[in-house]
Amino acid sequence: MNTTDIRDLTSLRDALREFADARDWRQFHTPKNLAMAMIVEAAELVEHFQWLTPEQSRALPPETLAAARDEVADTLIYLVELADALDIDLIAAARAKMAKNAIKYPPSENIE
Amino acid sequence: MNTTDIRDLTSLRDALREFADARDWRQFHTPKNLAMAMIVEAAELVEHFQWLTPEQSRALPPETLAAARDEVADTLIYLVELADALDIDLIAAARAKMAKNAIKYPPSENIE
Amino acid sequence: MNTTDIRDLTSLRDALREFADARDWRQFHTPKNLAMAMIVEAAELVEHFQWLTPEQSRALPPETLAAARDEVADTLIYLVELADALDIDLIAAARAKMAKNAIKYPPSENIE
Amino acid sequence: MNTTDIRDLTSLRDALREFADARDWRQFHTPKNLAMAMIVEAAELVEHFQWLTPEQSRALPPETLAAARDEVADTLIYLVELADALDIDLIAAARAKMAKNAIKYPPSENIE
Repeated sequence: MNTTDIRDLTSLRDALREFADARDWRQFHTPKNLAMAMIVEAAELVEHFQWLTPEQSRALPPETLAAARDEVADTLIYLVELADALDIDLIAAARAKMAKNAIKYPPSENIE
Repeated sequence: MNTTDIRDLTSLRDALREFADARDWRQFHTPKNLAMAMIVEAAELVEHFQWLTPEQSRALPPETLAAARDEVADTLIYLVELADALDIDLIAAARAKMAKNAIKYPPSENIE
Repeated sequence: MNTTDIRDLTSLRDALREFADARDWRQFHTPKNLAMAMIVEAAELVEHFQWLTPEQSRALPPETLAAARDEVADTLIYLVELADALDIDLIAAARAKMAKNAIKYPPSENIE
Repeated sequence: MNTTDIRDLTSLRDALREFADARDWRQFHTPKNLAMAMIVEAAELVEHFQWLTPEQSRALPPETLAAARDEVADTLIYLVELADALDIDLIAAARAKMAKNAIKYPPSENIE
């Protein structure tokens, strides 16, 4: 697969399967290991923000933003691989969770 | 927006914007705070796997899998909100990262 | 060992060894698993702070502080168990790291 | 303070206060930021273990062990700074948590 074919979560998942197979990496891709890899990438994102004020975190300098973009991508990549290993449909899972959240957190009342 | 309209990352992002606005939560959604929230959800995933053998992690009992599905969804939700707050296109970022990875990690040679 | 005997990192380590042995938990205590357990506890700490302003994080309400105290303790407990599993002397490691940091980050100049 | 004076958690805390003051770093050391810094160090530890088998994690090569020792130290350093910022006595907190755990998890029965 050419990476230009990655257009959504399904094609990203397929590209990741092909990528791992071509390198014989599936043997390492237990859900346990993928969850670890994902939190490590999430921490690399957190690291960019740890000493920033709330305002600074909203206005990253270009190099930090470019680095954060890579970390965001890595987190998504491991999340997609983890979901695949667990046979979870990410969008369906998010849809179900949003429906639960809508019940758990009713919208604010309009105060008028 | 009805949650049944969530079919991809773009409609998920739109649903999350609407959800946050209806609850006046945008004020809390700095990139710094969203990165923290995301790593907390990632850790809830890790927690399910911490004492499991590699084999056990590949064969979760149904209740653990259902819980992991919720945690996977929560991680995706915060990742989408973080990317939105940073104005990052998640799929484009993943595509660019995959292209980098293909150069960084060439496929294994066939040994014959 | 009585928990009242815990007075420093060495007696804490000894109490943790005894505690794990009495429950047959050593089999689960690989460095890999302990590192996972530690980051999960660290995330439970992070969770208390994720939506707080910097100022709010300096002035936790009593119940949040009590919960944070338990999470701080859990993080220390797994850190001590991890160091023990790797045969690392925590205080000697911190001393060596502080010596490195003193060279890496020279003190600010007095500007007068 | 000379780093050779670091012999326990109290002298480590004192050395860290002095170190931060000499660099004017206290302004960044909110509990929120310190919790973030701590989880980032914890993740650097996790990273060493993410692709290892349980057995491999028990027998790290010397360079990995040396790197892990630095990460263990960094995690302890931020944990001590966080506890200090929250005015938590780490050893007392661990002692209290161990007493709770002893009740929550009774020792295994001898089966005879």
